[in-house]
Amino acid sequence: MKKIGIMTSGGDAPGMNAAIRAVARRAMSYGFEVYGIKYGYAGLVAGDLFKMERSSVGDIITRGGTILYSARYPEFANEEGQLKGIEQLKKFGIDALVVIGGDGSYHGALRLTEHGYNAVGLPGTIDNDIPYTDFTIGFDTAVNTVVESIDKIRDTAASHERTFVIEVMGRGAGDIALWAGVAGGADEIIVPERPFEIKRIAQNIQSLRARGKKHTIVVLAEGVMHAQEFMDQLKQYGDFDARSTVLGHVQRGGSPTARDRVLASKMGAYAVDLLKAGKGGIAIGMEKNQLTYHQMTDLFEGRHRPDLDLYEINKTLAK
Amino acid sequence: MKKIGIMTSGGDAPGMNAAIRAVARRAMSYGFEVYGIKYGYAGLVAGDLFKMERSSVGDIITRGGTILYSARYPEFANEEGQLKGIEQLKKFGIDALVVIGGDGSYHGALRLTEHGYNAVGLPGTIDNDIPYTDFTIGFDTAVNTVVESIDKIRDTAASHERTFVIEVMGRGAGDIALWAGVAGGADEIIVPERPFEIKRIAQNIQSLRARGKKHTIVVLAEGVMHAQEFMDQLKQYGDFDARSTVLGHVQRGGSPTARDRVLASKMGAYAVDLLKAGKGGIAIGMEKNQLTYHQMTDLFEGRHRPDLDLYEINKTLAK
Amino acid sequence: MKKIGIMTSGGDAPGMNAAIRAVARRAMSYGFEVYGIKYGYAGLVAGDLFKMERSSVGDIITRGGTILYSARYPEFANEEGQLKGIEQLKKFGIDALVVIGGDGSYHGALRLTEHGYNAVGLPGTIDNDIPYTDFTIGFDTAVNTVVESIDKIRDTAASHERTFVIEVMGRGAGDIALWAGVAGGADEIIVPERPFEIKRIAQNIQSLRARGKKHTIVVLAEGVMHAQEFMDQLKQYGDFDARSTVLGHVQRGGSPTARDRVLASKMGAYAVDLLKAGKGGIAIGMEKNQLTYHQMTDLFEGRHRPDLDLYEINKTLAK
Amino acid sequence: MKKIGIMTSGGDAPGMNAAIRAVARRAMSYGFEVYGIKYGYAGLVAGDLFKMERSSVGDIITRGGTILYSARYPEFANEEGQLKGIEQLKKFGIDALVVIGGDGSYHGALRLTEHGYNAVGLPGTIDNDIPYTDFTIGFDTAVNTVVESIDKIRDTAASHERTFVIEVMGRGAGDIALWAGVAGGADEIIVPERPFEIKRIAQNIQSLRARGKKHTIVVLAEGVMHAQEFMDQLKQYGDFDARSTVLGHVQRGGSPTARDRVLASKMGAYAVDLLKAGKGGIAIGMEKNQLTYHQMTDLFEGRHRPDLDLYEINKTLAK
Repeated sequence: MKKIGIMTSGGDAPGMNAAIRAVARRAMSYGFEVYGIKYGYAGLVAGDLFKMERSSVGDIITRGGTILYSARYPEFANEEGQLKGIEQLKKFGIDALVVIGGDGSYHGALRLTEHGYNAVGLPGTIDNDIPYTDFTIGFDTAVNTVVESIDKIRDTAASHERTFVIEVMGRGAGDIALWAGVAGGADEIIVPERPFEIKRIAQNIQSLRARGKKHTIVVLAEGVMHAQEFMDQLKQYGDFDARSTVLGHVQRGGSPTARDRVLASKMGAYAVDLLKAGKGGIAIGMEKNQLTYHQMTDLFEGRHRPDLDLYEINKTLAK
Repeated sequence: MKKIGIMTSGGDAPGMNAAIRAVARRAMSYGFEVYGIKYGYAGLVAGDLFKMERSSVGDIITRGGTILYSARYPEFANEEGQLKGIEQLKKFGIDALVVIGGDGSYHGALRLTEHGYNAVGLPGTIDNDIPYTDFTIGFDTAVNTVVESIDKIRDTAASHERTFVIEVMGRGAGDIALWAGVAGGADEIIVPERPFEIKRIAQNIQSLRARGKKHTIVVLAEGVMHAQEFMDQLKQYGDFDARSTVLGHVQRGGSPTARDRVLASKMGAYAVDLLKAGKGGIAIGMEKNQLTYHQMTDLFEGRHRPDLDLYEINKTLAK
Repeated sequence: MKKIGIMTSGGDAPGMNAAIRAVARRAMSYGFEVYGIKYGYAGLVAGDLFKMERSSVGDIITRGGTILYSARYPEFANEEGQLKGIEQLKKFGIDALVVIGGDGSYHGALRLTEHGYNAVGLPGTIDNDIPYTDFTIGFDTAVNTVVESIDKIRDTAASHERTFVIEVMGRGAGDIALWAGVAGGADEIIVPERPFEIKRIAQNIQSLRARGKKHTIVVLAEGVMHAQEFMDQLKQYGDFDARSTVLGHVQRGGSPTARDRVLASKMGAYAVDLLKAGKGGIAIGMEKNQLTYHQMTDLFEGRHRPDLDLYEINKTLAK
Repeated sequence: MKKIGIMTSGGDAPGMNAAIRAVARRAMSYGFEVYGIKYGYAGLVAGDLFKMERSSVGDIITRGGTILYSARYPEFANEEGQLKGIEQLKKFGIDALVVIGGDGSYHGALRLTEHGYNAVGLPGTIDNDIPYTDFTIGFDTAVNTVVESIDKIRDTAASHERTFVIEVMGRGAGDIALWAGVAGGADEIIVPERPFEIKRIAQNIQSLRARGKKHTIVVLAEGVMHAQEFMDQLKQYGDFDARSTVLGHVQRGGSPTARDRVLASKMGAYAVDLLKAGKGGIAIGMEKNQLTYHQMTDLFEGRHRPDLDLYEINKTLAK
């Protein structure tokens, strides 16, 4: 193996740049050439590649987003798209790839591996919704961004004795809501993985108020419903002087936390080592603080499990 | 004069606590007793007052919100409400007051002054929409919170080459949008004080994209319209892969910036000095970096003027 | 068991308040009374205890430091001191304790357990130097504080093409230096657990400069030597236009990160559950993402091991 | 005029990039070509110039440091150096310059003006020590960085009831100490512009402690003496369990605050307008919130005056 390609695919996440840096630097330390593939699979098919130097990744460890840009490209599901991509790999003499993104982007990586181009996947998403890894690159940063927002909202909530419903990202997963909810001292955390009864929540808010609590904060995972819908349901049970905030895309950006930078650096270096060892069609994870890898095919069947102990713990801490 | 009361009224703002601290400490340095009035005029009428010690304001300079809480209390517009408030002032032996809040809260302060209880107003609001002051307490913090959000959104906007419409607070005023827009490097700033043509904006976004700009950011003042409404209008002129974010109440909270803490400290100390000098019915401002004061009656007629030079400058810097 | 005491001992760390909150709220959820013991063992001996209510821990999850204050109190090593402490426990009717601090503070906890008062230890220190836990409460926050500082210093280092030697805390352990070094993109990381050759480092800096790198950053663990001493040694091998910064006590403070708040919440709740189950003389850890506990006696013999893979990885990423 | 050069000189400051962006974009909006001069006067003499495009300044508004790098170059004081610089200006066809830096860097700018190449100076330094401007570019960011550090140190100071002496930058000026001291709630602020008596400070600390204050914080301007020297003097009057922290170069870096970005944007645009109007040998200021300019010769004689009202106010607020 002489040349490695790197791409970021799907939604961007803080720490992707740290991963790009780690892959590039580690590969160069073995004497490999490194090519950056822009805009994920779309760029691969279009031949939007460039040779990376050490300086190409200088100082990017501090930056959110991805210097390689990202794009969704469903066409790569078709063999036609894949063959176009392989043409480009041949043209640039690339032997193997690292794909940083959600598990959706692993399908393309598996196809390329099947065509003889080893590809290793790195879990890059704020949603933490990928099987066989305890944490994804970007999750820790997103959670801290949400917690900082909750801390700010608490200031004003306390000053006016209000109830705030804060909608956070996570797609179908409740991880961001669970971690940010516990860390933010939320009174209620609503996640897709657990049923909730709006009536009980309304009663809890009322009893907290009756007990003199200055503010009540509900953290709502977007996978459950939208904040406005939740507010409408809540209103059926009384007036809580409630406000809602949809944190939105701020959760996707920002300089990555130390945790995300270290996770991305370890995973990026490991990906290159695995490619060097001739491996492909695998995805890297961090399980029980150990670097691991699994067949991508296993991931497609596997299910991510959030840390629901946080859900139980919060019941006793918030009350 | 022997006893001073302090209250915060209307929407809370970062730096109100720094102002409370300054008023209390300055007053105590003159040997005055200080009483905290909770929940603004509602608390005054209800007799929710407590004697403050030096330690009552210890370490609050770093905190957002207001330790005195705030509330809207339209009933204070009626003489009946005012007389109830004055009863409480008599009961606690309070001679004079400092009211920290928006100019709406100055009306009550003026009434109290007319009844013989000198009251001085401090401009505390993130909106910067008060006449006769260049800056209000809380504005600088809110602008920095917005700019940090824009910086985060830019990361993801650039990674996906998207257009973002960011709705910011400010009620009827464009100040937050103007400052945060320029500081955030926005491509377009939409404020109530200037007309805008949605078609021209759509064309500008398209030309910026055509020129290869990776992202376009529009900062929209809530006083113009809601982000969703703006998005709908924009869509009429093409698909911009646009997203909108309503920053919401995070803008009201957070630890105050150095600028807001210093502004609050100076104004708070000055308010006590003016009460000591027998003044009342006046509101404090910071104009051209100088502490000033004006009759509250003048404020009710005056109009706040945002710094529209920022609007003109941004046209040449964003393009 | 009816009454639980909580204290923080030794150096303070961000997240101690989140742990205090978790212990108090969890205990109250079981119907236990909770007493806060101020100033660690010194306060215990002096009888500086107070009954905590739910509101005693309201909103403290966001704050650095410890609301119970901390103090070093070597006298507690003597039986005389211990008996005085036990007198106070009897007087207040306290059955069991949670001690949050470094492993030094576990000795006193073990003595109390031996005297029939079950005590559970929580690892609270920024240094991460406690055996049988992968992470201590406060470590993640300290690392992020250091990384933010490195990011700032990089700005000026790059502008002037300078070498910076940044001394970080950690006492005898290199954990903060390792994590912050990798996350901060340090060119060299110097830790007590690994030998270093000043000459090789000097040559590396020179070769990096020769290759056009704009800045070089050395992260130095305080356990190795002081920054000034390092600078003096470095100067022997040439002029690097080097500057040094000793980050100091900023590393001990600040609002805890989400990670530290969650870690503290989980450990705090678990400590109460273990006391409820009649356990004592044990210390809680988080190993491989699982809550664990070990006999304090084992901790006194055990040795903490930092993640030295980070040391190896950084060699290939920095170069 | 057709071509403008831009350079940054002297110590770097946050917001210099925002100023570079403003100068470049404004100039391009008038149809001028813009050249970046690297490493200040050293780069000018060496001919280290490059043509800037709109994209050259894309997204730099958020970054600390200076993309043009900076360097000290005393040789430019000699006519020989100046003539070499002018050769380069001729070679690149540059008619006029903007120099961003401290007033030291204005001397070179004045020489170039005298040689027929109009140069306008922008005050870029964290020290705020330039005459005829209330604020310099970088000052607000530095002050906020210091205040965040004080807030963190207060956490640990309060937990251990300690005295902290925090040495801040500012060279000969006390501005950073004054603003950060008031905003940080310092108990004592020591600046070069005011005499201080170590004995009185020691007594004040003791009386604050006697009154039960949990921590005492002294902010010391580097222009007075070094923290260690201050500590030694303090120790003569008793044991205060004091610690010192030298904040160091973190104060020079970081993403600029909104205030610094807006100040830099306004000044940068104004500089181009003045060059367009044929002006040279002048320096721009922001006085009483108005853009102003003065002859550089006046600046060399003028003296900067810090806001010493802050010194007086703090006496009543801290006590």
